[in-house]
Order: sequence, then C-alpha cells, then structure tokens
Amino acid sequence: MLSLAAAARGFDVHVYDPDPDPPAGRVSARTITAAYEDLEAVAAFAREVDVVTWEFENVPVETVRAAEAVGALVRPGPGALEVAQDRLSEKAFLRSCGFETAPFARVDDEESLVAALAEVGAPAVLKTRRFGYDGKGQAWIRDPSEAGAAWAAIGARPAILEGAMAFEREVSLVAARSADGAFAAYDLTENRHEGGILAVSSVPASAAAEVETRAVLLVRGLMDRLGYVGVLAVEFFVMPDGRLAANEIAPRVHNSGHWTADACVVGQFEQHIRAVAGWPLGETRRLFAQVEMRNLLGADAADWTRWVREPAARLHLYGKREARPGRKMGHVTLLR
Amino acid sequence: MLSLAAAARGFDVHVYDPDPDPPAGRVSARTITAAYEDLEAVAAFAREVDVVTWEFENVPVETVRAAEAVGALVRPGPGALEVAQDRLSEKAFLRSCGFETAPFARVDDEESLVAALAEVGAPAVLKTRRFGYDGKGQAWIRDPSEAGAAWAAIGARPAILEGAMAFEREVSLVAARSADGAFAAYDLTENRHEGGILAVSSVPASAAAEVETRAVLLVRGLMDRLGYVGVLAVEFFVMPDGRLAANEIAPRVHNSGHWTADACVVGQFEQHIRAVAGWPLGETRRLFAQVEMRNLLGADAADWTRWVREPAARLHLYGKREARPGRKMGHVTLLR
Repeated sequence: MLSLAAAARGFDVHVYDPDPDPPAGRVSARTITAAYEDLEAVAAFAREVDVVTWEFENVPVETVRAAEAVGALVRPGPGALEVAQDRLSEKAFLRSCGFETAPFARVDDEESLVAALAEVGAPAVLKTRRFGYDGKGQAWIRDPSEAGAAWAAIGARPAILEGAMAFEREVSLVAARSADGAFAAYDLTENRHEGGILAVSSVPASAAAEVETRAVLLVRGLMDRLGYVGVLAVEFFVMPDGRLAANEIAPRVHNSGHWTADACVVGQFEQHIRAVAGWPLGETRRLFAQVEMRNLLGADAADWTRWVREPAARLHLYGKREARPGRKMGHVTLLR
Repeated sequence: MLSLAAAARGFDVHVYDPDPDPPAGRVSARTITAAYEDLEAVAAFAREVDVVTWEFENVPVETVRAAEAVGALVRPGPGALEVAQDRLSEKAFLRSCGFETAPFARVDDEESLVAALAEVGAPAVLKTRRFGYDGKGQAWIRDPSEAGAAWAAIGARPAILEGAMAFEREVSLVAARSADGAFAAYDLTENRHEGGILAVSSVPASAAAEVETRAVLLVRGLMDRLGYVGVLAVEFFVMPDGRLAANEIAPRVHNSGHWTADACVVGQFEQHIRAVAGWPLGETRRLFAQVEMRNLLGADAADWTRWVREPAARLHLYGKREARPGRKMGHVTLLR
C-alpha cells in the first residue's frame, strides 16, 4: 500500500525484502531479495535511493544503520525503531513522555519472573521483549503457579511482565509528523482484537472528546521528542474512568489506520510517503460519518466475494499467495 | 493508474507495451516489451492472463483479436475499439445510437475534400480518420482556399471533415457497464481544452439537469448496444439551446474522469478493473461539492512543488521520464 501511494506521486520504489516474492515487489520499480543481515546488499540498495523507510518494525536496527552509513536519508530514524523493538525500552520511553502504561517489570529468567509477579500481581501477561506481533511471543499468567509454563511458552527469552488492565476499550491514534515538524492526526480509532490480532477498527471511537485530545497531545509530544518523520501509531487502553494507558508504539503505518486510505482526503500511506519525501503533510479530514475496517484473516479472505457486492464496502486484497490461519490477507472498509 | 487500482484488489497485472520502460511497468507484476504487431508475443501474453484490457484506444484491433484467438477474455471487446478508431465509423455509429453530431463528410483525397467542404461548409476541421488524439492529425479550414494546405498538413491520409460547432461548452460523461449489464455513470464533467489538449475538467458542469439526464440515457444506450464491459467516455458539445452533440467516444478510462479517483467512493480506474474482472460495479457518488482537475502538461509538471503545498489538492505524477511540450506528466485534483 505504501508502494502504491508512492507510485501515484511519481516515485520509483525499490523494495528490499528477504522474501523473493513480496506483494510489494509486484507494484514496485525494483525488488532486491536479500537478508536483512546482508549489510553489503543493504548498502548497495541504499546507495540507489533517495530515502529509506519501512513498513515493518522488526527490521534490525543494524540494517537501518547500514543504510544510513552510506549516506541514505532514513525516515523515521533508527531511534524510533530501537525504542519500539524492545517492549521494555518502549514502556520506559512511553512513561518518560508522560504516558500512563500498565504496571510492568523486567524478566530475564524464571527467578526474576517470580519477583516480577510479586511486583506486578496476577493476572499478567508475559511478553518477549523483541520480535513479537499479532499476539505472538505472549503468554498469560492467571496464577503465580503458571509462571514456569509461561516462561517455557515464550521460549525462555528476555521478557517483560505486564499487569492486566481492566480496560473498557482499545483505541489507537495514527498520526504523522513532517520533516519540518508539522503534525497531523487521524481520528481516534476504536479497535477490537480477537486472539491477539486486530479484527475490527471503527471510527468514531466511543470515547469522550477530551480523551481524544489527550491522546493527540501525548502522541505529538512523543513524535517531537523522537524527531519522528513519517506515520506512527500508538495503541491505548481506555480505562473505565477515562484514563488512557499506552500499550504499544508502532513506528510505521498501522493496521488500525487502513481505513484512512478510503475515508480521508489523504490516507496514512500517502501521508507517510509525503512525510519521508520531505513534502508537507496532507489533509487528514474524514469524509464519512462512520467507518469500519474489518481484517480478512486467513481463510476469511474467501469472503471477498461477499464484500465485492456491497456498494458501501471498499475491498483490499494484498496478493499474498498463501492463506495461513490468522494471516492478514486483505481488509474491507465499510463507509457510511 | 489502472495497474495501481488492480493491484490494490489483489490482481497481478501484466503490462504489454512496445515501450521498454512504461510507467505502468513499474507498478505491475510483469512487463512484456513487444510490438503490437508481434502477434506471437501477443498470444503468449494473452495465454498467461485471465482478462485483457487496454488504456489506449490505438491498440490495433488485430492485436486484440490475436489475444481473443487464444481464448483470453477481452473486455471491452474489439468491437468498441473498431468503432472508436475510425472517426468516420465513430460518427456514423453515434448517429445510429440517436446522438446528434457535427455535420461530417468522408474525405479520401483533395477532390472529395472540395465536395465535403461544399456539403459541410466552412469553417470546418479536417481530421485523419485514424490514430489522432490530443489535437494531433487535425487542421482547421476557415476558407475553402485553405483546403490544399489542410490536406497536406494532415499528411494526405483518409480523413473526415467536420463542420465547426458554435458550442457553448464541452462536457463529457464517464460511465461503466458490468459484465451482467449493470450501468453506472459519474457526474457530467465540464472540460476546457487548450491547443486541442484537455487542460481543466470541473464538476459539477454548468449544464441543466435535463442535459445530464439526456447524456446518461444516450451513453447507456450506446454501451448496451456495444455489449460494452468496462469504463467508457463520450465527449459532447453543449449548444447554446441545450442540445448535445457527441464529439468522440473513448473506449477506456478517460482523462476527464481522473477526478473521480480522488472525489468519488469508487473512481474510474477501480471501476474499470471491477467491470473487466466480472465484479459488480462500485458506487460512483461524488464526495465533494466542487472538484477541478488540472492537467500538468510538459514543463508545467514542475508546478508540482506548488500543488504539494495545497491542502485541498491531490497530486498525481505519472513517472514519465521526459517532459516534452504538451505531454501529460501528471494532474492535480482540487477538492472543495
């Protein structure tokens, strides 16, 4: 979707991906197939382009630094990636920017997990510090006796224990910052996860205007502090008393912002391209009273034949060759 | 733009183009570089795809028939191409569908040009019957004494002489027809040409609702008669008394419909893809009160730096490598 938005603005996109047939390669001027660890290939790639960005936050920071080392403009910078790749530094950074978060503690081994449980309390969720997404690398601990099993379940890797939050709903804010520091946010989005994977995003979110304003101010402060250039999302829990607890930073375009591409003057994909290209930001205004985005996961993608018959539904299919369970194959945006 | 719309719906696009670096090739899964006359290459291309379409009506009919001959679904069919490629059969077909047109006469040589001038009157415009676009292959005759010069100017090729129309404005109707015969039109668009090239399209057109209704009914009838599948445009002159005279059929997505991609629920590019894929048509509703599309021609494309700063402007650049005078390099849609 980033490649499509870039091409429509006249940019030639080069895709660097370890996968030899990435969907983006089919809509890009050039595809380089190489491992993220192949820093020579990364350097050769970076020398050919004007600006480097990503759509996936698990690109190793070393890869991004190797691109910078040959003089490529990297947007957003490696700092944002570094913060977001480690759940412990992410939570600490969120706190330092004034966000509330769930109680959390560092876990390096079974012993520190026991101490963390004593501090945070149960129920709690044990998450690997790195390379988790869509509920992967996570295990719930409802009672301290489950600690050993949870530690084994996440592969006995450096982790973070997060206290359960009795939240009322989940929301996210997708926002953009340009190279000259201008800021623009999309409307706060309400998200429903199923099995740790985003199922439905809807706008407007059921949250007081004051909650949305607070989210915008917090996210703007965080982006300024990072000197962030591009689109970023922050996921929040909304507590019954209206407090916001930040859950996660996604330093990239975000699934909960897919609706913006169909429902706003300028959607998140074009917005990200504009920002990383050094252009002014586009208008984020929503054009429909109510918007709902539903992910088509795994075999659900076969549902597209239903959505294609709905006049108010905008269907997106990603061209992934294999529909594995839970895999994001496409999405549909319902506009009202 | 068709490739982008198709890719977002999960289709792999194969581009067949004599140009070794067509902009569409940079956003398509595969690019075949071969001449339209290389019917073996055409057959090989057609065997690899599910459906064949075009974005350019000067593809030879034989090329399209060669694709059909190996079993490819060709949408819209070669019939539409055949009618539109010859200005004489186009005008005759329009008349047979109930459209008014300018008075016209067939011209095969200087002698028949003199006879045609006597019939149609001057001023009139002499146009080659085939391969004209954007004002190419045309010469005005203001006085019968200019006949010889005009005949030489168009290269002494089979031609049509069309009487000048004292029209009040130019409009076009872009519409779509699905494989099961459903029809959907976009709002009537008012066009301003400069030097024979479309400069500005604006919506709503300054025309009575009754004029628009008539255009829709006429175009629907024409599409039904052709068994047309896909998007098509008809250009009209609006006469001072409100009569509509059809000027040209474009059997493809049309420059005067570019605004729809930014301003309607489903734009003409996705609509064409939906139709040729056998999908139901999408919603053509306009989302902005006023829309203006300006072409960026030749060196004007350098203006993009201006448009990128306008929040209500959606900028499109086509990735053409060379900005020749009058060449369509991009466009900008202004939304109000």
